[in-house]
This record gives sequence, structure tokens and C-alpha cells, in this order.
Amino acid sequence: MLLVKKFGGSSLANNNLIFNAAKKIIADYKKKNKIVVVVSAQGNTTDELILKAQEINLSPAKRELDMFLVTGEIQSACLTAMAIHKLGYPAVSLNAFQAEILGLNNYGNSRIKKINPERILNELEKNNIVIITGFQAINFYNDFVTLGRGGSDTSAVALAAILNADLCEIYTDVDGIYTADPRIIKGAKKIKKINYDEMLELASLGTVVLHNRSVELAKKYNIKLVVKSSFNDNSGSLIGDEKMEGSLINGVAIDKNVAVISVIGLEDEPGMVFKLFALLSRKNICVDLIIQSIGRQNTKDISFTVAREFLNETVEMLKKNIDFFRYDHLIFDKTVAKLSVVGTGIASNPKISMMMFEAIYNQGINIKMISTSEIKISILIDEKEIESAANAVHKNLLENEIG
Amino acid sequence: MLLVKKFGGSSLANNNLIFNAAKKIIADYKKKNKIVVVVSAQGNTTDELILKAQEINLSPAKRELDMFLVTGEIQSACLTAMAIHKLGYPAVSLNAFQAEILGLNNYGNSRIKKINPERILNELEKNNIVIITGFQAINFYNDFVTLGRGGSDTSAVALAAILNADLCEIYTDVDGIYTADPRIIKGAKKIKKINYDEMLELASLGTVVLHNRSVELAKKYNIKLVVKSSFNDNSGSLIGDEKMEGSLINGVAIDKNVAVISVIGLEDEPGMVFKLFALLSRKNICVDLIIQSIGRQNTKDISFTVAREFLNETVEMLKKNIDFFRYDHLIFDKTVAKLSVVGTGIASNPKISMMMFEAIYNQGINIKMISTSEIKISILIDEKEIESAANAVHKNLLENEIG
Repeated sequence: MLLVKKFGGSSLANNNLIFNAAKKIIADYKKKNKIVVVVSAQGNTTDELILKAQEINLSPAKRELDMFLVTGEIQSACLTAMAIHKLGYPAVSLNAFQAEILGLNNYGNSRIKKINPERILNELEKNNIVIITGFQAINFYNDFVTLGRGGSDTSAVALAAILNADLCEIYTDVDGIYTADPRIIKGAKKIKKINYDEMLELASLGTVVLHNRSVELAKKYNIKLVVKSSFNDNSGSLIGDEKMEGSLINGVAIDKNVAVISVIGLEDEPGMVFKLFALLSRKNICVDLIIQSIGRQNTKDISFTVAREFLNETVEMLKKNIDFFRYDHLIFDKTVAKLSVVGTGIASNPKISMMMFEAIYNQGINIKMISTSEIKISILIDEKEIESAANAVHKNLLENEIG
Repeated sequence: MLLVKKFGGSSLANNNLIFNAAKKIIADYKKKNKIVVVVSAQGNTTDELILKAQEINLSPAKRELDMFLVTGEIQSACLTAMAIHKLGYPAVSLNAFQAEILGLNNYGNSRIKKINPERILNELEKNNIVIITGFQAINFYNDFVTLGRGGSDTSAVALAAILNADLCEIYTDVDGIYTADPRIIKGAKKIKKINYDEMLELASLGTVVLHNRSVELAKKYNIKLVVKSSFNDNSGSLIGDEKMEGSLINGVAIDKNVAVISVIGLEDEPGMVFKLFALLSRKNICVDLIIQSIGRQNTKDISFTVAREFLNETVEMLKKNIDFFRYDHLIFDKTVAKLSVVGTGIASNPKISMMMFEAIYNQGINIKMISTSEIKISILIDEKEIESAANAVHKNLLENEIG
């Protein structure tokens, strides 16, 4: 078997944990498996490096920041290899340049374009355990680029795809994927199996956040993903294309990193909305929920949400282009949060949305926006009320038997 | 003018010092110079990284250690670029892979083989200040290799050579090169000019240690080197091919990292000595002083010095090969130190060696080995006596007027 094993920062945060990971790797290697390991930077290294860069320059050039940040993964890859050596097994660390992981040019938020697997295959052929730096790629200019937060998951799945791996294991600090965050919701339960689309709709389930691109890639190449703890031997959660067996609802997720912007009185002219979101897209600002309502006198109002760190940039960009878009004014708010319910049963069972809104209503909570898809319902509410809302919805939908 | 400016770790040890370096760089950039900067890792980063690796594995594989260590220079290059940006000037950092600094394969102690300057020239063409990581190269396998201690000086000189730079400035934490270590010898004076050969004979003069390879390269390509402080605007010391103007003696240097090994009763057969040192050379063990004395009954005794960290390895290797070399026994000692006097006047002025030995004799110090060249006299004495010996020799030779 060829296994790709990805260890997150919390699973490598100190020397003991690095040896713990090394032992898990070796245990599988001894069973005659070929092993490719993908590592994140240790613990909070990436955040610490960002702070260190910001002490020098509050807005460091993204190119320089990327080259600075990739040292975190290079270091943890080397240390993991050294630990495996110490335990008496062969290992070699490869960074993105050595592993020929090629990415798009954009700094800070690149994507993997291609992987030339010759070196990796060559090292596997020599019976080496191959430790590869996650989160990084090399662009056209031979510069290091990073893949955005959680990008190491994407590195692992991309490698699993190119190497035709039998399994891609994502090691983290919790037992698997939960129906909700167990720190907030007592009744949260571990999910044994979930399919790609459901996971995509709910990138964050429980406390595990899987980068959406990693799940998209896993779906595209049909890579079985297992999310499990590096601190015990529990079985974890499987993400695959299996039909779901149990509940119609997979889970309830909270996202507090949300800001909402309303563009009021936008000119009602074909293409205006396209131009608005094209502008945001060019700046790599991801828009999440979008609601368009009819305004007055040939105008319309558009509300949308972005991650909070993009609020200022988005507002400034809209203000700069007021003459182009000819809107009346902007309203924006950082004190909102998003609550989502995901499950394949949603489209076929109107009872689910009813039970969700009932739970919210019983709490006396006001809903600001609603967005639905085949397998997801998301609502935007006041941040202060998100935890009581999540508990109520989880209790109503997942702690009672429905469907 | 094209300037190469190299900043050592002590000149970049914290954010203030990084900005201090950035200002010096910008000052020259504003005078319409093209600037290539070579940086070491910040402060004691390299030592700290070595300790961190050794916590995982006391003898980390050299390949992994090299890849681990180069992150120190990558980080300081990025931070320096970010500081220059903050001050409003354009800069770009390049690591060995981006700058195409190609080295020999051997890990831990590589040499620069070739530099492809296209990318660097391209960035200079775009009016960027180019910040390049010192101490590192890429080998045939696309692995990072390090150039040995002090290797950043070599990186700087090699870049100055390939770019045909007008000057290569080595910034450090002292004003320049001194006739002796001012912490030990009160009468030590700054040297204004010294030529390559003298500097080569005395890689360490004062407290400045210039990597010998960097001086060899500077000599080969006739690169003017200036060693100066990054903490003030004093003029520093110039290393070039100028004829010396002042004293016949340049300085007195102490080397405590010395161990002496004597091979007693070595078979007196042609090629034996060659084979002995060929064996050490293959293991990358540098031998410094060598003395061969005639033994008895067709045997000879050979004494030589190595850096202390190589003593055990050297002794073990000799013991393992006792049947091949057919010597009688070994004597070795770690408690010795080397005192050297360097100056172009030595060969032409017998008074100098006389005055050196006189000073040592007056201190009642026993000399264990003597080695001389055209421009250097080195003696090996007990480590405990090295400071009093150095003071006495410096006083007799450099604080009186001779020549």
C-alpha cells in the first residue's frame, strides 16, 4: 500500500510529539507500506512567523512573507526525518522545490498546478520514508508560494492523487469529524463516514477544519481521506463517496470569521453584479453568502459576506468605485456569525429547515440572512447569539431522531 | 558601482539591527549604486538550530541538518527585504536555489562550484536591491548544502566575483581587522590595509574571522574586501593587493581550537605520509601544522594538528589502520593552542622571529611545535599560557617600532 500521512502543526508541536508522529509513521512502514508524509509547521510557528514579519513591516510583501513562512514547514520536515533516523529507519525530507510541487504564481494564496513525482518515486524506490513540506509550492519565477491556510491538507491530497495512494490520513489533535464543535455543543457526536459533498458544504465540522480545496481534490481523484487523532489509535472519520447510512443531517457548524456588507441602491443594469464580484475576485477576496433584493426606482440592494480580514479592503474598494457602480451607500457589520446545517437529507426533507428555524425562533433570535443549497442551510445571526443558536439547532436536529 | 554588502549574524541580531543594516544599504542605493546584499542567519540562530536538531538526534544526518540550517539565512534575507520595503525602497530576497548558487555535493562543508547570475542581474535590472542568503548552495541532487562556518563571506566574495563587483564590504560587529584580539591584548591596533596573502595566513586577526576560502577567492578574482562595523561609519580595514605601507608585522593571532596528534614510529617507506594525509583528507579533516622528525630504525615520527572536534575521529581512524601504517603508538593532546605572527616582513627580517622567541622565552613558556612560512611564524604552546604569550609577543613586535 502507498499511504500519504499528513501531520498538522498541533501533532508536531514539540519534540515528544515529533517522536510520537515518527512512531506512527514507522509502524505503517514496518508493515511493508510505502509512506509519504506531509507536514505542517510545528505548533503555532506560522502565526509566530507572521507576527515576527509584522514587527518589521505591518504589511510585508506577500512574496517575501511566503518565502519567510515556508521555512516553518522545511524545519518540521527536517526534524521529522531526523526523529525517524533516530529510531533507526530511513527517511528523507523534501521541500516544494525538491519535490517539484509547482503552483500558480499568486503569492499567499497559490494553488498546486502540477507535481513532478520523479524525485519522490525515486526516494520511495530507495525504501525511504519521504517527508514533504506541506503548504508550499514553487511558481513560474522559482519563488516559493504558500497555498493559503490549511494548505497542507491540499498538499497531502494532491500528492495522494499524483502518487495514486491507497489512503490519505489527516492526523490532527481530535478524534475525527464531529457533528458540531464539542467545546460548544455537549451533544456533539463523532461522524464515522461522510461523503465529499457534505464535507465540502461544511469545511468546518466539529473542530476539524479541512481546507475545501483538499476535499474538492479528494473528490475529483476519488482519494479516501481519514481524519484521525495523532494522540491515540481511534479509528477517526472517513471521507469518501460512500452512501451515508445514518442520519440525514451530518452536522452543525459555526463560522465567526464573517463580516457582512450591504451595497444599497446599486444601479439596476445588466452586468453590474458580475462586475462587482469580478472586482472582488481579482483581489482574491472570497465572497460567501450573497443575497440580492429588489430595491426601489431601478435600483437593487446586494448583501454579501466576506472573511473579516477582508472587510476593510472590500469597503475601501467599493468606496473607490462608487462612481462606477453608482450605488447609494454601504452598510457593513463585523458582529455577525454564520450557522450552517449540512446533510444529504435537506433537499428531500422540508422538515429539516422547519426544525432549524423553529429552534432559532424558540430562542428569540433574529435571522439576518438565509442561504440554502441542496445539502446545506446557512443563516447569518448576531455573533453574540451564535452559541445558543447552535446548541438549540443541534439539539432539535441531531439529538432527536428524525428522518 | 556594483557593491556587494555582506552582513554577519551579529549585524542582524534583532529588528533594530535589521533596520540599521537596511539604512546602510539604502544609503548606498540612493547614490545610484547597484546593491547585492548577502546575509547570515540572525544572531546565534545557526547555533540554536543545531541545538534544536540535536535535541531530536544527537548526530543528525548532514543532509537534513543542512536543509534545516539554511532556513536561518532564508528568514534573515526575507526580514531584511521587508525592512527595506518598510523604508520605501525596492528589494527582493533570493535563496541559493533562486540565485542559482550551485555547490559541490558534500553536505555540511560544500563549496561554491558555479553561480548562474541571470536572475540576480534581472532583479538588479529592475532596480531591486537583491538580498541573497549566504552560507548555502544547491548541489547536484537539488538539495541545499551549507558552506561550512563563515561560509557567508565566501558567498559574498563569489557573488562579487561573478557579478564583477567594484567592492565587497563585510559588515561585522567590530571596526575592522586588528593586530590582535583587543579583548585579550590591550595594545591591539586597527589595520588600515592588509594584502590577501597576509590575511590568508592569519584568517583570524583581532576578533574578525574571515573564512579562508573567501580570502582565497577574493585574491583569485582580485576583489577588494572591506571589513567594517555595521554599528558606526568608521572606515574599516581594506584587504587587497596593495603593497603594505606601515609595519612589517600585521598581527598576532590566537587559535585555541587545536589538538595535536603524534604518530610515533611510522614505517619509513615512500608514500606513507601521503597515504596518511590522503586518508584524513577523504574524511574532510583539515590538518594544520605538520612536523616530521626522524625516528629510529627506519621509522619516523609525525606530529600534526587538527581542530579539536576532529580529534576523536582522527585518532579512531589511525587506530583502525594501525596494521596498514605500522606505527608504534599515538600521543594526542587537546590542551594546546596556536600563536601566530603574520607579516610580509618576516622572510626578509630575521629579527622578527628572534624577537618572537625572545618574548616567549622571557615568559618561561615551553614551545611544543614551530612552523614557518614566508609570511608567518606559528608556535604551539600550552593552552593555559596562550594569553600571556600573545601579549608578550604583541608588545615586543607591534608596540615597539621595528623594521
